[in-house]
Amino acid sequence: MKHTPLVEKLIQSFTCLPGVGPRSAQRMAYALLERGRDDGRGLAAALNAAMDGVKQCRRCRNYAEQELCPVCQDPRRDPGLVCIVASPADVLAVEQSAEYRGHYFVLMGELSPLDGVGPRELGLDVLEARLNEGQIQELILATGTTVEGEATAHYVLDLAREAGVSVTRIAQGVPMGGDLEFVDGATLAQALRGRRPFSS
Amino acid sequence: MKHTPLVEKLIQSFTCLPGVGPRSAQRMAYALLERGRDDGRGLAAALNAAMDGVKQCRRCRNYAEQELCPVCQDPRRDPGLVCIVASPADVLAVEQSAEYRGHYFVLMGELSPLDGVGPRELGLDVLEARLNEGQIQELILATGTTVEGEATAHYVLDLAREAGVSVTRIAQGVPMGGDLEFVDGATLAQALRGRRPFSS
Ligand SMILES: [Zn+2]
Ligand SMILES: [Zn+2]
Repeated sequence: MKHTPLVEKLIQSFTCLPGVGPRSAQRMAYALLERGRDDGRGLAAALNAAMDGVKQCRRCRNYAEQELCPVCQDPRRDPGLVCIVASPADVLAVEQSAEYRGHYFVLMGELSPLDGVGPRELGLDVLEARLNEGQIQELILATGTTVEGEATAHYVLDLAREAGVSVTRIAQGVPMGGDLEFVDGATLAQALRGRRPFSS
Repeated sequence: MKHTPLVEKLIQSFTCLPGVGPRSAQRMAYALLERGRDDGRGLAAALNAAMDGVKQCRRCRNYAEQELCPVCQDPRRDPGLVCIVASPADVLAVEQSAEYRGHYFVLMGELSPLDGVGPRELGLDVLEARLNEGQIQELILATGTTVEGEATAHYVLDLAREAGVSVTRIAQGVPMGGDLEFVDGATLAQALRGRRPFSS
């Protein structure tokens, strides 16, 4: 014997979580069984509620529990500025920078025709409609720098040009506070190409 | 804004799991929302099934989904040998040593009067009854080496002496003050082979 069937099934289910291998899955299952059955039931309820209740914002495709997400509902945010990101986690990262007060558009992926991910799957028709509304002054590209990220960025650039909206891209370079020796060559090359006049 | 309420609740619920801080909880929630909603619902179902369906074996107090656990049901196991452990995770650790073919008794804790954990909470009345049945030839103590573990070991020793059952203790090859569930199988196998008569 190793585990009883329900425990085995629970351990196996935990391994669907990122960063959870068989060993931590086992620890999680036993911890809940031994001293956290109410926590376990609470987690189950939270999972069901979120899996069923979290939808996408009609306007920006980020997570929302109503028609519009909190950002799209917030009148203090600048609707003339829209930042294009690949995922809701990227929205969080930008929000945590506490630098940005515009809106977002969340692609939920990047162009990858071989995997069946085309412009429609990324909601780029929705973005096109928003660009033609005339309210957007500037699109900020914050997609990744992989091949798919670049392809996506260029597709969005074309859409924005047709609508006469200006496009910028977040700066690429060495991370703040980072040690130069740990920065990869491609990033350093990009940082060198993007060098700017410096004065105190 | 940071997260919508359902996402916030899910992230917070994940932090009840051992080794999961706010940052990994966030990664887990977003991973399930983005590309694993069925996994999320499956995990919820497995949690509910296990929290409700996993009970304790009537005979040894280990996890069971029927009256008796798989070990107590297994006719190939030696009922004359009973290993006393603090938790179901410790049973797993001993099983993984592949050295032991006897039965278990799972205390689900250790004596800690200040926390309200007395002999009854550890099912020591059930153990006493089993000792008096006359089938047990040897009790093997595999409780921890903390103060509570020692107190528990001595309490069990007294019970066994009254019933005329001999008591051994797994060899102190296990790290002092260590948690049994983190000991590797080879060390545990060695500790079992090296068990010695136990007396106060
Ligand atoms: Zn929105
Ligand atoms: Zn049992």
